[in-house]
Amino acid sequence: MYTSDQMQIDIGRGSWIRRMFEEGLELKKIHGNDKVFDFTLGSPCVEPPPQFQAALVDVVNDPTPGMHTYMQNPGYPATRVAIARRLTAESGIEYTAENIIMTVGAAGASNVFLRSVLNPGDEVIVIAPFFPEYSFYIHNQRGTQVVSKATPECLPDLDDLRGRLTDRTRVLMLNSPCNPTGRMIPAPILKEIGEMLRRHSEKIGRPVFILSDEPYRNLLFDGLQYAAPADYYDDTIIVTSFSKSISLAGERIGYMAISPRCKGAAKVFEACAFNTRTLGFVNAPATMQRVMARIQDWESNVPVYQAKRDLMYNGLTEIGYKIPKPEGTFFMFPESPIADDPKFVMMLKDELVLVTPGTGFAAPGFFRISFACPDQVIQNSLPGFRRAFERAMAL
Amino acid sequence: MYTSDQMQIDIGRGSWIRRMFEEGLELKKIHGNDKVFDFTLGSPCVEPPPQFQAALVDVVNDPTPGMHTYMQNPGYPATRVAIARRLTAESGIEYTAENIIMTVGAAGASNVFLRSVLNPGDEVIVIAPFFPEYSFYIHNQRGTQVVSKATPECLPDLDDLRGRLTDRTRVLMLNSPCNPTGRMIPAPILKEIGEMLRRHSEKIGRPVFILSDEPYRNLLFDGLQYAAPADYYDDTIIVTSFSKSISLAGERIGYMAISPRCKGAAKVFEACAFNTRTLGFVNAPATMQRVMARIQDWESNVPVYQAKRDLMYNGLTEIGYKIPKPEGTFFMFPESPIADDPKFVMMLKDELVLVTPGTGFAAPGFFRISFACPDQVIQNSLPGFRRAFERAMAL
Repeated sequence: MYTSDQMQIDIGRGSWIRRMFEEGLELKKIHGNDKVFDFTLGSPCVEPPPQFQAALVDVVNDPTPGMHTYMQNPGYPATRVAIARRLTAESGIEYTAENIIMTVGAAGASNVFLRSVLNPGDEVIVIAPFFPEYSFYIHNQRGTQVVSKATPECLPDLDDLRGRLTDRTRVLMLNSPCNPTGRMIPAPILKEIGEMLRRHSEKIGRPVFILSDEPYRNLLFDGLQYAAPADYYDDTIIVTSFSKSISLAGERIGYMAISPRCKGAAKVFEACAFNTRTLGFVNAPATMQRVMARIQDWESNVPVYQAKRDLMYNGLTEIGYKIPKPEGTFFMFPESPIADDPKFVMMLKDELVLVTPGTGFAAPGFFRISFACPDQVIQNSLPGFRRAFERAMAL
Repeated sequence: MYTSDQMQIDIGRGSWIRRMFEEGLELKKIHGNDKVFDFTLGSPCVEPPPQFQAALVDVVNDPTPGMHTYMQNPGYPATRVAIARRLTAESGIEYTAENIIMTVGAAGASNVFLRSVLNPGDEVIVIAPFFPEYSFYIHNQRGTQVVSKATPECLPDLDDLRGRLTDRTRVLMLNSPCNPTGRMIPAPILKEIGEMLRRHSEKIGRPVFILSDEPYRNLLFDGLQYAAPADYYDDTIIVTSFSKSISLAGERIGYMAISPRCKGAAKVFEACAFNTRTLGFVNAPATMQRVMARIQDWESNVPVYQAKRDLMYNGLTEIGYKIPKPEGTFFMFPESPIADDPKFVMMLKDELVLVTPGTGFAAPGFFRISFACPDQVIQNSLPGFRRAFERAMAL
């Protein structure tokens, strides 16, 4: 009676990530923090790099009139120039400030973009497993979600994808490297997706967009070069943030980059600037925009995450787990030794090991590990992982 | 082809405020900044108070691990406790942290609240003149906007309001003191509105909410005490920000306060916390939350704005303008001397005086002045206001 019908459905349904996190809190109360191995939440475990702190102190200690009040909705020109410059250097595509809108994180950017291009009922394809919040963003902005299944290696399945295209297809969401799998989509697959969407756009007479969610783009291991969707398809819009790359998730600072190769770039920019305002974001937080204008030379702390990836991956594969090896992020997505992944997750919980079932990412038969946690937690969790695996094998 | 049908309608329609602001930029290029009197944008003209700057420097110079990463979606408990304490002291209603959600400004809070309570097609009543962004917020969240006309004194018209109530009425939006009129709704009117909504809620069998948008609550003149909607109606949700009161509009820091007297307060809190996440805000910016936890003793710079109000109000009424006297904000809403307010606004523009027609606020026959500008601009604009008035009288 006090909330909408939709809220009662959505909240009733709950979130697997949150549910496992809350199970963890209970277990920690009973057994103590150091006895519970919590791999549920996708929160970075390193501090922002030193140049962030230095720039923040500089900005704040040197106040200038009006620095906390409104600016243009897309953000400060200086910030957008700095972002465009780095992205151009990283990608070889010539971005300018007119392609960049500063946003309240990648979540804000996704909502703004979807609102700008979807007519009610237009279809948005996501590739399972996918970050479950996408479903809300699509529904918020009146789209219809269409799920394409990944291959067993957790990469896009091109045949399945082709079969999902319809007259109403408007957006393909990609997330590379991916939460929850850590997999990066390699260049040859991106090339085929690009060709498929070009043909389909021509066929249906309006562009299909790639919405490329790239918060983990700079968290790539083994010196791997990023394979960028925008290199293979012109109508690509990047949404991203500094939440994961430099651990600023609470500051809600991110951006959208509309490919200058998109023929409708100016129209999309205008609509997204408008929706940044009218959806209630108005602009990305001012102080963080000023900081980001100064530190486009930041680097993610890749070695720390890579060492954790190795520790966990090697430990688990040695036990017998099968895992599509993650090229980036701080997630991995092992196969559940039994088909019923929620059941196996409960078996792990009996060992005080907390993970999230693949079912929560529309991919049953797997589970997600977030390894952004102290090495010791990873190390000490391995015996529990082993016992659960052996019990599952004995079923 | 590149944006949705709705975007093409919305952007084509444009905004009067922005249109007049852009006219101003053109005029300034031709005539010079000091020759153009721009009263279009509602942006504060004073700097944040000294305790804000001191607290920001303190927070930033004393980094603690994890201070820039995620927290609970409703915000830091310490911040919400501080907000609840001040609001309790100001209002006599016992708010606790469980009634407070930190938000990306009042615009973010409005979208979050409407999303939480509206079934598609539920009606939201706004009282004209009103801030035109409300229409987008209502439409974004699938509501139907219903307009009730104010009295000539720019206060709610109780008979008109009563006639707008239907089975689908879900929310009444109030904005006191009001952008664009500067009027505060006095206690006797709030009392009658409260009684009306209580009866109506009972009749239709579900609560009608008051969404009370209060960013100007602390910008009241002449020592006036605030008449708070929440004092007269239990199902009241405050949305507000520090954008206007202490000039932090660019930082996107605000909050929602659900009255503890609302029987469904816990349900509304849960739904709003959920929507803060899923609409893509996730949480209010972390650093500004930390600052606001420390400075709940801030005061708005009322004397500065009151002096400007007096200068403008006295200057204009002496010329002959009829103006409902504003009790707060930095706006006033004079009657247009001719019925065609856009035409009169163009006559003012000929005098290099820029204001926004009442039509832009669904109230033809008036125009809005934003007097948050240097005293000299107000003073020097008066001859132009006089000439336009005299030309209008001679028509």
